[in-house]
Amino acid sequence: MNYQGILSDIYNESVKKQERGEVANYIPDLAQIDLNKFGMALVDEKGTLYTCGDAKEQFSVQSISKVLTLSLAFRLVGDDLLQRVGVEPSGDPFNHLSLLEQEQGKPRNPLINAGAIVVADILVSQLKNPKETFLEFIQNIANDPSITFDTKVAQSEKKTGFRNYAAAYLIKSFGNLENDVDTVLDFYFHQCALRMSCEQLVNTYYVFANRGKCLQNNPYLDLAQVKRINAIMLTCGFYDEAGEFAFEVGLPGKSGVGGGIVALLPDKFCVATWSPGLNPKGNSKLGMEALEKLTTKTRLSIF
Amino acid sequence: MNYQGILSDIYNESVKKQERGEVANYIPDLAQIDLNKFGMALVDEKGTLYTCGDAKEQFSVQSISKVLTLSLAFRLVGDDLLQRVGVEPSGDPFNHLSLLEQEQGKPRNPLINAGAIVVADILVSQLKNPKETFLEFIQNIANDPSITFDTKVAQSEKKTGFRNYAAAYLIKSFGNLENDVDTVLDFYFHQCALRMSCEQLVNTYYVFANRGKCLQNNPYLDLAQVKRINAIMLTCGFYDEAGEFAFEVGLPGKSGVGGGIVALLPDKFCVATWSPGLNPKGNSKLGMEALEKLTTKTRLSIF
Amino acid sequence: MNYQGILSDIYNESVKKQERGEVANYIPDLAQIDLNKFGMALVDEKGTLYTCGDAKEQFSVQSISKVLTLSLAFRLVGDDLLQRVGVEPSGDPFNHLSLLEQEQGKPRNPLINAGAIVVADILVSQLKNPKETFLEFIQNIANDPSITFDTKVAQSEKKTGFRNYAAAYLIKSFGNLENDVDTVLDFYFHQCALRMSCEQLVNTYYVFANRGKCLQNNPYLDLAQVKRINAIMLTCGFYDEAGEFAFEVGLPGKSGVGGGIVALLPDKFCVATWSPGLNPKGNSKLGMEALEKLTTKTRLSIF
Amino acid sequence: MNYQGILSDIYNESVKKQERGEVANYIPDLAQIDLNKFGMALVDEKGTLYTCGDAKEQFSVQSISKVLTLSLAFRLVGDDLLQRVGVEPSGDPFNHLSLLEQEQGKPRNPLINAGAIVVADILVSQLKNPKETFLEFIQNIANDPSITFDTKVAQSEKKTGFRNYAAAYLIKSFGNLENDVDTVLDFYFHQCALRMSCEQLVNTYYVFANRGKCLQNNPYLDLAQVKRINAIMLTCGFYDEAGEFAFEVGLPGKSGVGGGIVALLPDKFCVATWSPGLNPKGNSKLGMEALEKLTTKTRLSIF
Repeated sequence: MNYQGILSDIYNESVKKQERGEVANYIPDLAQIDLNKFGMALVDEKGTLYTCGDAKEQFSVQSISKVLTLSLAFRLVGDDLLQRVGVEPSGDPFNHLSLLEQEQGKPRNPLINAGAIVVADILVSQLKNPKETFLEFIQNIANDPSITFDTKVAQSEKKTGFRNYAAAYLIKSFGNLENDVDTVLDFYFHQCALRMSCEQLVNTYYVFANRGKCLQNNPYLDLAQVKRINAIMLTCGFYDEAGEFAFEVGLPGKSGVGGGIVALLPDKFCVATWSPGLNPKGNSKLGMEALEKLTTKTRLSIF
Repeated sequence: MNYQGILSDIYNESVKKQERGEVANYIPDLAQIDLNKFGMALVDEKGTLYTCGDAKEQFSVQSISKVLTLSLAFRLVGDDLLQRVGVEPSGDPFNHLSLLEQEQGKPRNPLINAGAIVVADILVSQLKNPKETFLEFIQNIANDPSITFDTKVAQSEKKTGFRNYAAAYLIKSFGNLENDVDTVLDFYFHQCALRMSCEQLVNTYYVFANRGKCLQNNPYLDLAQVKRINAIMLTCGFYDEAGEFAFEVGLPGKSGVGGGIVALLPDKFCVATWSPGLNPKGNSKLGMEALEKLTTKTRLSIF
Repeated sequence: MNYQGILSDIYNESVKKQERGEVANYIPDLAQIDLNKFGMALVDEKGTLYTCGDAKEQFSVQSISKVLTLSLAFRLVGDDLLQRVGVEPSGDPFNHLSLLEQEQGKPRNPLINAGAIVVADILVSQLKNPKETFLEFIQNIANDPSITFDTKVAQSEKKTGFRNYAAAYLIKSFGNLENDVDTVLDFYFHQCALRMSCEQLVNTYYVFANRGKCLQNNPYLDLAQVKRINAIMLTCGFYDEAGEFAFEVGLPGKSGVGGGIVALLPDKFCVATWSPGLNPKGNSKLGMEALEKLTTKTRLSIF
Repeated sequence: MNYQGILSDIYNESVKKQERGEVANYIPDLAQIDLNKFGMALVDEKGTLYTCGDAKEQFSVQSISKVLTLSLAFRLVGDDLLQRVGVEPSGDPFNHLSLLEQEQGKPRNPLINAGAIVVADILVSQLKNPKETFLEFIQNIANDPSITFDTKVAQSEKKTGFRNYAAAYLIKSFGNLENDVDTVLDFYFHQCALRMSCEQLVNTYYVFANRGKCLQNNPYLDLAQVKRINAIMLTCGFYDEAGEFAFEVGLPGKSGVGGGIVALLPDKFCVATWSPGLNPKGNSKLGMEALEKLTTKTRLSIF
């Protein structure tokens, strides 16, 4: 497959686009990003890397990090995790807290904010130095010690993330949060504030396309875990647009409000896009389109 | 009307009751109360006081205080209050936060927790020393400087009131809270922790039966304000049992999880009951029954 | 009290108004009404009638009829009615069916459509000739055999009332409807299609202001029943604007999308207004304002 | 892959199971089924058929038919279908009508009842003889003219399917149903009453594993359509257990309350199971377990 040619075509089509969506403005530090950025990276089953555009520029991965905390929690507590968080799509644009209240503090899945907060609580309980250990976990998978948190973004979210506080306190009121809200959210805001480039993202998420082994062939997850995490990404990875992404793209993946998306085809490739403009559902507009083009041009998808 | 005879009859019927409901257990300091307590006080239009049972014993008024903070806020900001909180019944047992989320942070009415938190925020913004000024306001109406907060109960709620934190942060996320969540809830937990007896309650709430003037004939609210506060009590004063209370009792009133209820018939009387056992909807079981008996025996109600 | 003078003042203020809301357009036969109609009638405790404007002109009473079917059902089955329908405000503008589904087919109260459909089902079960008997019941109370159904309006609603069919089938799916949906809705659409004038309305609803006795002093309901029906009107009579009406007007009452409103002060008066333009919540715009003026000018309300 | 050996192993493990769930009892004609039935069929990429147990016995496919009506509608109207029905998981066990009301009559996806009713409406509008043409469509794909409707089951559902009537009328009230409710539901109840065996199911659904071509190599759908229908099956095929099925099994599929499940791995195989006992979420208990075993034993899934 001529991945480089395909990426170049997509790049050329994408940079001409006028309609780029809008940058997330509720996190002050993200609102400054240049709307014209566009990058893409793909690593194939042999580990060969293909890139285009701003593939080396780091950005705030935000919710994309939820797959990584989930993976680490899965390693640490296994299926016990499923006692505290579900695996069903939430399918609801507006009412995240309503659903959480209705289901008595057990979040629908680990990729919505409430679910990721419970996963963060598990990591805080399990790890002595949660932030440090989590960062090392990623650096190891990616074989890249330069990956780090943007503490300024983390602080910014701590001051304005009232809805995450509301979710965490609601979960706590139902007895599904072991640690202090402030401690858990400090970890949560740091995980969201990870800075990575498209290249670093594919180097990391390659593990989910490669049956649990990283590019250096070290095992991080077993096959059953990888399958299940991929299944959660497919059904829950794009907020209330998960069905649409499965329908139009057909790959497990995860997006973040920083404008990044990572997706993968098991045994074939892992791909990441970055374009900061979001569509009304909070997913990168050009990124979604680029991945649609990729699966159309390659005729490859899980379906 | 032979109020003393009627109160004595109700007292005699009530103390025999075995089925007394259950004491609120989510506030540790309230869980200790003796389930056998029963008191009642009534002040008629001439200011004559009638009592029975434990009418002089103080208890935690909890949500009953919401009518008093509402009154003070009404005095301070008038109808501007209605920009930030509605006057419709919430009618919903479970989903207080769901409703709040759906209605974008504007609470349905000032007598549900979310609404009272917004009212507390208004008082915190308007007053230099909110707790002190609010306490004086009540002491003045009741002509009784011995009324005070139970700071131990307030502290207890501060440590366990996670759902109130969730509500406050959700309201703040929608921009409907001016002050810090901690500051507002500190005030809110103190207002709930007011200790008053049935006697003190009727001395205070007499103002709502007497067109805004207290027993000493000092004006605190104008007629339009009193009418409107009474209307809110009738439609919203008993959580999701407001319709039931209007249907069976037919008086404006307000209950609290400490087991108190206060109710009134304009131009006729103000009455308070205390029995700590709650029905499944969170209202005092014997108190509800006692008030039903009162309106049946007197054949008096607003309807 | 100079009721005639007050009505004349209200009339003069009302007819000048430009902002009159919009006529209900979802029932084709109601969409033709002249927006400039305005009438008002009041009968005081002595039975004296006061009128202004189009008080003698008949219109489609629509939901106002729900109080009358409720009264007849109450006479026939007493408190058993409460097994099948609640007495709590629904407080929800949009989600009537959601609530009904959530509460498993037991409507919140008898004055929302779903509740009135259950009441209609009770009447269909209890009566040999439900439509005829119901009509006679009203004619007798009003002492006016000219009151009748507008069968053209009833047919019109039968063809377009899909949401009422949805509600009835949902209720039936939960086992809370004894008869065929078509039979029940035939009755329901007829009751809504009653034609009455403001004069006829106050002659009928006087029974709720007069402790259950009509203008001819015949008893129809006992005091307990009247109190309870008045309580339901106050808490549930104006869709999701019930709190607002209690807050601003302070009388038990019921509105209909035909533009009519009836309200009453126990032992004092019964009043009806008609102005076909509705506010966004489906209540007559000028009617609401007229009743607000009435309670302001008379300084009379239940609170 | 030794599919026959794997099927035999699963069969032997399954028939020993005591816990078999419960037969759907809301459709009287289905309540009679023998709980001990168990069958399985698999057709691989070469078209070879493997079976075990009651694989040749016909049963009521119920909701499994929704994938076939969706396919036919997709052929007839293409993407226009997406104007009238979404592709997002509903994720909600209880509130199908609530969601429909909230989203103003546009069903979340074509595999919930409301969505399938809209698809049925499209077929009724597009086809002269919808039932006949739909049946022929299936007979052709399966190359099996013996497939037919069980009209007794269809009649049975017509008399008791009140909730489907409620959904259809609600959709119609929002203007998203072109034809009469009775006409549309007559078609809908017939499609659900299709009788097929596991063998017939895999012969039919092979088309979704084979890029749109049936076992006779005739094309019915193009690759883009097949991918999208598979995506919808994966995200929406198992009511509110879709995430669980993706998580545990990892195949696109569809279940029915008759106890059947069909699932497939693109380019590899199509499999069907039948066991009438349902788990609490309405999916065949042994069928779910059998498919979990299949993907564990074969180590094959889309993830």
